Amino acid sequence: MAATYTLDELATRFGLVVHGQGKHLISGVATLAKAQCQQLGFLANPHYRRELANSQAGAIVLRREDLPHWSGSALIARDPYSAFARIAALFEVTEGSQSGIHPSAVIAPDAVIDPAASIDAHVSVGARSRIQAGARIGPGCVIGEDCVVGPECTLVARVTLVCRVALGPRVRIHPGAVIGADGFGLAMHEGHWIKVPQLGGVSIGADCEIGANTTIDRGALDDTVLEEDVRLDNQIQIGHNVVIGAHTAMAGCVAVAGSTRIGRYCQIGGGAGISGHIEIADKVTVLAKSFVTHSILSATVVSSAIPARDAKAWRRSLAQLNRLGTDRGRSPRD
Amino acid sequence: MAATYTLDELATRFGLVVHGQGKHLISGVATLAKAQCQQLGFLANPHYRRELANSQAGAIVLRREDLPHWSGSALIARDPYSAFARIAALFEVTEGSQSGIHPSAVIAPDAVIDPAASIDAHVSVGARSRIQAGARIGPGCVIGEDCVVGPECTLVARVTLVCRVALGPRVRIHPGAVIGADGFGLAMHEGHWIKVPQLGGVSIGADCEIGANTTIDRGALDDTVLEEDVRLDNQIQIGHNVVIGAHTAMAGCVAVAGSTRIGRYCQIGGGAGISGHIEIADKVTVLAKSFVTHSILSATVVSSAIPARDAKAWRRSLAQLNRLGTDRGRSPRD
Amino acid sequence: MAATYTLDELATRFGLVVHGQGKHLISGVATLAKAQCQQLGFLANPHYRRELANSQAGAIVLRREDLPHWSGSALIARDPYSAFARIAALFEVTEGSQSGIHPSAVIAPDAVIDPAASIDAHVSVGARSRIQAGARIGPGCVIGEDCVVGPECTLVARVTLVCRVALGPRVRIHPGAVIGADGFGLAMHEGHWIKVPQLGGVSIGADCEIGANTTIDRGALDDTVLEEDVRLDNQIQIGHNVVIGAHTAMAGCVAVAGSTRIGRYCQIGGGAGISGHIEIADKVTVLAKSFVTHSILSATVVSSAIPARDAKAWRRSLAQLNRLGTDRGRSPRD
Repeated sequence: MAATYTLDELATRFGLVVHGQGKHLISGVATLAKAQCQQLGFLANPHYRRELANSQAGAIVLRREDLPHWSGSALIARDPYSAFARIAALFEVTEGSQSGIHPSAVIAPDAVIDPAASIDAHVSVGARSRIQAGARIGPGCVIGEDCVVGPECTLVARVTLVCRVALGPRVRIHPGAVIGADGFGLAMHEGHWIKVPQLGGVSIGADCEIGANTTIDRGALDDTVLEEDVRLDNQIQIGHNVVIGAHTAMAGCVAVAGSTRIGRYCQIGGGAGISGHIEIADKVTVLAKSFVTHSILSATVVSSAIPARDAKAWRRSLAQLNRLGTDRGRSPRD
Repeated sequence: MAATYTLDELATRFGLVVHGQGKHLISGVATLAKAQCQQLGFLANPHYRRELANSQAGAIVLRREDLPHWSGSALIARDPYSAFARIAALFEVTEGSQSGIHPSAVIAPDAVIDPAASIDAHVSVGARSRIQAGARIGPGCVIGEDCVVGPECTLVARVTLVCRVALGPRVRIHPGAVIGADGFGLAMHEGHWIKVPQLGGVSIGADCEIGANTTIDRGALDDTVLEEDVRLDNQIQIGHNVVIGAHTAMAGCVAVAGSTRIGRYCQIGGGAGISGHIEIADKVTVLAKSFVTHSILSATVVSSAIPARDAKAWRRSLAQLNRLGTDRGRSPRD
Repeated sequence: MAATYTLDELATRFGLVVHGQGKHLISGVATLAKAQCQQLGFLANPHYRRELANSQAGAIVLRREDLPHWSGSALIARDPYSAFARIAALFEVTEGSQSGIHPSAVIAPDAVIDPAASIDAHVSVGARSRIQAGARIGPGCVIGEDCVVGPECTLVARVTLVCRVALGPRVRIHPGAVIGADGFGLAMHEGHWIKVPQLGGVSIGADCEIGANTTIDRGALDDTVLEEDVRLDNQIQIGHNVVIGAHTAMAGCVAVAGSTRIGRYCQIGGGAGISGHIEIADKVTVLAKSFVTHSILSATVVSSAIPARDAKAWRRSLAQLNRLGTDRGRSPRD
């Protein structure tokens, strides 16, 4: 049942160069440590080069310069990770979900579900929302009012679109994500908070991916926007009226405060925080656990993260740091 | 169908002063950049003052000192953001949910649902829980055992109240929030963790708001407590037995460890962490991404956040910081 | 209906020493501040010793050295917290859930549900998944394809197991947790992200506990692994192919990036971050809010957290820190 391909076939299909036995058959992919003779491994991160010596893989996707470290067959790629990603997709078993509406789903009378969409168990779809062809709404999802789920979107399970959320084609959202909740808008009035109505929505472009338990608030007046091909990992928080440029990727647990604009092709490391009301240029890299408080106007790499070290040594450095800025801590010539 | 108001009417209703055409009709609100002639804009953050010049808004809510920068009609307010919040609420379309219990909901025989409450699709309500008049339980919510949902509360969708959670009037909880899960209590016994039973509950006062995917654990013995009008953004974590004073607000991704007491009217910036077993006075401000490790006894502003900058320059500072506290790094007179 | 025990009975059962009235009856547990004469309090954290003077508790679990501060009856323990945890469990009321499948649950035809398992309202179970004896699947849970829920597991409510997730015996998972979502694997190809298929699963050992809204991604090729008795608090993010050793505990909001291996008996403080592709030895302690960027090869305590202090003083220290590493900031002898 599983597909098999020769190395020659894979090379032709993905524009790679065969080294060794072009007729060797591959029926799956695996790590260097576990791959067997019908499986393909890959080497992208040089950290793992030492595993080549003992690998039993039938062939390995690698860069030409790593070839001397490997005695077997290989597929030579300029970017082995990307090549591997595309090859691995051949071996991914995906069950086609049948189109149609599960009898336990609850659909508002004026919602529109394309006959070629699939609505799974315990889903609810609110007033005036539209689910387009090929969209797959997994079990337990809640789609509120005035939402659009574009063609071929996948909401894996237990995703919430609160209201006025529009998804472009092929958007994929993982479980627990909440898109379109009220932005956090408060004004103090006579000693009590009053809520600022959140009248905007969320607009998400084609091919975006949104991780598990990530939250993206809807805008106060205008929309919160993700342009196409934005990739968000798990547990990310995006405040209201943020705009994220195309092809930008963020690792887990990033938080972006309201009204900030982030450029295209940015990469934001895990746990980073970004203040509100600032602008970040295209192709900026923010390293993990950093905190961006000011606009960044050109493609640079920024950081404020501190690597952990022995706690006692760290406490001593910290004591000195706290003295900096006091008279005693100033250097003699200041 | 949409309401319209003259500037004079809005001024009277909200205690503002009209500048310009009091008879001008307003039918909605928008940003300075997008507002059209029947729409009202606002200027609160001076950062956006430059947008006044090109705004097409029919009128703008602003401070008297900003009037010289704007040539059109205006509503003059001491706090334009608060005034705007109250005006915008006039234009918010909210669909009245019908009271009653959706047929797909599953209600324990001894739960009590007020006839004027609304229970949406795929909700479950556990033993001995009570849902009071005007409460709206959105689709996919799970209410466990021994909970009380007060009058006029809104649980938007997919909210979980685990057990022994009591909500006062008008509490609003966003999707994915989990209130009343077991606190994280562990004791090591013979090389294996044993779980400390979490016998308390959670008590949430009137008018609190709780963001998407925020978690508030129930107490080990006493309750975890939010007093009235506490406002929590998304993805906040509140440990067991924390007490948060009235009118305190926290931005996204804050974490508060167990048994800490936080005062009234505090403001906690996004991503801040607060250690367990400490006390924070009233009106304390914790800046974003800071880490509070000791009690704070008076109304102050505290921080330990570091703004990101060029990664290479930061690495050099860090190398010096790590030398502080070693002999080589000490200043000559130490 | 509630059980009662004499101090003598409790001492015998848990290997403790009675001080005072061994026949005194105890019918519950409470804090030192609230315990009444039939209730047992405990003193583990010396921070609370001052509460002994006014406690009305019928008896207190404490260390022998705290006895002079308390005039009433006591149970003397070497580890009062652990003793209290085991005693408190006697007084925890847990409702036995009936085994069987709620009529609103949706079970794939080829899923296997043990007759002694309990499946609550609005649950769905996917193809080829197996739910073993004594497992309790609470309301709103989604179990995807090819999962195994071991004997006596508890999924409290609204838990998602996406696919290829295997739980050992007695695993407990709190609401909103998402186990087995796609790892965050992306490769850039011709200016567009392509998704790296995530072909592995998640393997979770016996007695693990996983907090509310925590996310654990499934592996890219091999599995993501939690060995036995791992304890994760709320809102933790575990990347794909992470391995966490037995008995390791993590407080709330920790994030671990992909392919990192963490040893046994580690303790990771709240909000800490751990980079990908590193190794952490057994019995390492990472203090709260620290960021581990390199492998740690022996049992040590590491930190990079900075305690917050007065914001103005902090800004002055920070200005000096930023000058370190520039010529002006260097000390004279560098």
